[in-house]
Amino acid sequence: MKVSELGEFGLIELLAEIATKARGKALLVDIGDDAAAWRTKAAIQLATTDALIQDVHFTLSTITWRELGWKALAVNLSDIAAMGGAPQYALVSLGLPGDTEVEHVAQLYEGMVELTQRYDVAIAGGNIVAAPLVVLSLAVIGTAKGNILTRSAAAPGDQIAVTGYLGTSGAGLAMLKKGLQFDDETTTYLREAHLKPHPRIAEGQILASNGVKAAIDLSDGLVSDLAKVCKASRVGAHLRVEKIPIHPLVSAAFKQDCLNLALSGGEDYELLFTGRVEVMDRVKGLMPCPISVIGEIVNKEPGRVRLLNEQGKEIGVERGGWEHFAPRNESGLSKPGY
Amino acid sequence: MKVSELGEFGLIELLAEIATKARGKALLVDIGDDAAAWRTKAAIQLATTDALIQDVHFTLSTITWRELGWKALAVNLSDIAAMGGAPQYALVSLGLPGDTEVEHVAQLYEGMVELTQRYDVAIAGGNIVAAPLVVLSLAVIGTAKGNILTRSAAAPGDQIAVTGYLGTSGAGLAMLKKGLQFDDETTTYLREAHLKPHPRIAEGQILASNGVKAAIDLSDGLVSDLAKVCKASRVGAHLRVEKIPIHPLVSAAFKQDCLNLALSGGEDYELLFTGRVEVMDRVKGLMPCPISVIGEIVNKEPGRVRLLNEQGKEIGVERGGWEHFAPRNESGLSKPGY
Repeated sequence: MKVSELGEFGLIELLAEIATKARGKALLVDIGDDAAAWRTKAAIQLATTDALIQDVHFTLSTITWRELGWKALAVNLSDIAAMGGAPQYALVSLGLPGDTEVEHVAQLYEGMVELTQRYDVAIAGGNIVAAPLVVLSLAVIGTAKGNILTRSAAAPGDQIAVTGYLGTSGAGLAMLKKGLQFDDETTTYLREAHLKPHPRIAEGQILASNGVKAAIDLSDGLVSDLAKVCKASRVGAHLRVEKIPIHPLVSAAFKQDCLNLALSGGEDYELLFTGRVEVMDRVKGLMPCPISVIGEIVNKEPGRVRLLNEQGKEIGVERGGWEHFAPRNESGLSKPGY
Repeated sequence: MKVSELGEFGLIELLAEIATKARGKALLVDIGDDAAAWRTKAAIQLATTDALIQDVHFTLSTITWRELGWKALAVNLSDIAAMGGAPQYALVSLGLPGDTEVEHVAQLYEGMVELTQRYDVAIAGGNIVAAPLVVLSLAVIGTAKGNILTRSAAAPGDQIAVTGYLGTSGAGLAMLKKGLQFDDETTTYLREAHLKPHPRIAEGQILASNGVKAAIDLSDGLVSDLAKVCKASRVGAHLRVEKIPIHPLVSAAFKQDCLNLALSGGEDYELLFTGRVEVMDRVKGLMPCPISVIGEIVNKEPGRVRLLNEQGKEIGVERGGWEHFAPRNESGLSKPGY
């Protein structure tokens, strides 16, 4: 069987099984969550890795080197955010063609450094090798206090909420790919959302220290990522499509497609989290960004996400979200990480 | 300027400078040593990353998937060994073409798991993405007790020593590449040395806890890696070529080339370390592998490695060691890591 037939998620399950056979050490969370977690004497340690590969995850015709550095680090920081942790150190493994301009590599690093300064992360080390195309594989190590957010802690009766707006990154990708023209405000907003995502680090920590137990960062798309939470937690989910937050600039620019972009565009790097009503009411007042309750966790059909309209009637959805080796959009670009 | 004109080591220096600008956190050791190191409340934490890229570092016609998994992890563990630390957790970032056989990916993981079991390492997490060629980027996190081994701690008057034998991996590469025929014992020995290197983890820890301060693992080649120690320590080195340990099977199979293989073949993943005579005498009795004193650190010509023959006369050397973007062997294959 080929990797493309089994699919990314099947492959992850298989490899997790092989890796677990050898597990001597106690891990709090391992393969299959946003980051690995283990307990040390001092704290809970978090570690994650994510790669961006040229012409798979990005094309140099639409992203600057500086943005590429930012994004490669941001997607890793987002995984730490989704655990409720604080990132501390980054390791940068770089594959570069020999004819890459040194100036471009410096810009790549400057983009990373810009982000490290915002979140007090140190680039602790790395590695550079020759490669036929640009490969950026980063690992980020972080720490968490008492409580971490996992994909497996969603419980029936929990509300489902998200930070920020969804579909913006997907809208940005569509704009860049198709060369769509919008006003300056829209163009800047969409471009930044796709190329310079902001990891929700402060937000993740607020969630973890205020009673939220379950979270994931939205990299593959709302439906796909929520399904992972449902699978890991052995619960189902009902999504209220009219509650899904879509930015007015996105709904104006993509009247037809904005819901699909929000459901399965991916790469928004917002946090999806679940919690009891009273927990949600508390965190809403504490979060520095918009929070939208978009559905609830149910005690049936484990792993299944149903979309409901305002009348509570189920509606269909184009198969949502990204899976590597099963690209479904025209560009063939696929999303990093799991 | 192109990356290939500046060279790997120049690029590392440039990027280290950019990364250091943003350094808020105290690192004991950072970009430019075998691994990054920082102090936590409980211990010294070590972290390293290294990548293997298809047709740059390996070709699937000469390595099995199982061996590839072993080697990808081994080269990272070797960096932790070179700091005197104990590896604990590995993160595996995998780029795979869609038509890769699932069975092969499972074998890749089994090769890694085989090695984790020997050294009590857990595969804590990872990431899989689609890629046009096989990319393996691993990060390993470890820990060290009081003393770590660095590249910058060599002092004039120190003896220079290495573990095991040198040139064996390079001999193995030459055999595989050129399809050379040897007896079974030689073939097996050379193949294993090149494809399944054994990281010197116990040895590194013995060195660190018995007064050795300076070490590096030999990935790029003896002369090149020793020059890195000399540069970081601002000292020179004299190598006694007749003292360089070459295995009898290698000297028999490569009569002409064995010294050059030992000097610059690379990928032996032995440890090179320096220390005062009394420290060396102590560790020789404690190490579970052969140790050879091959030269001394001198207080002149910082960064310069001189090769001396039995009469103490300097001899020339083909420019030794590997630098990415400046491949110098016929295969064009280059060594991972720094």
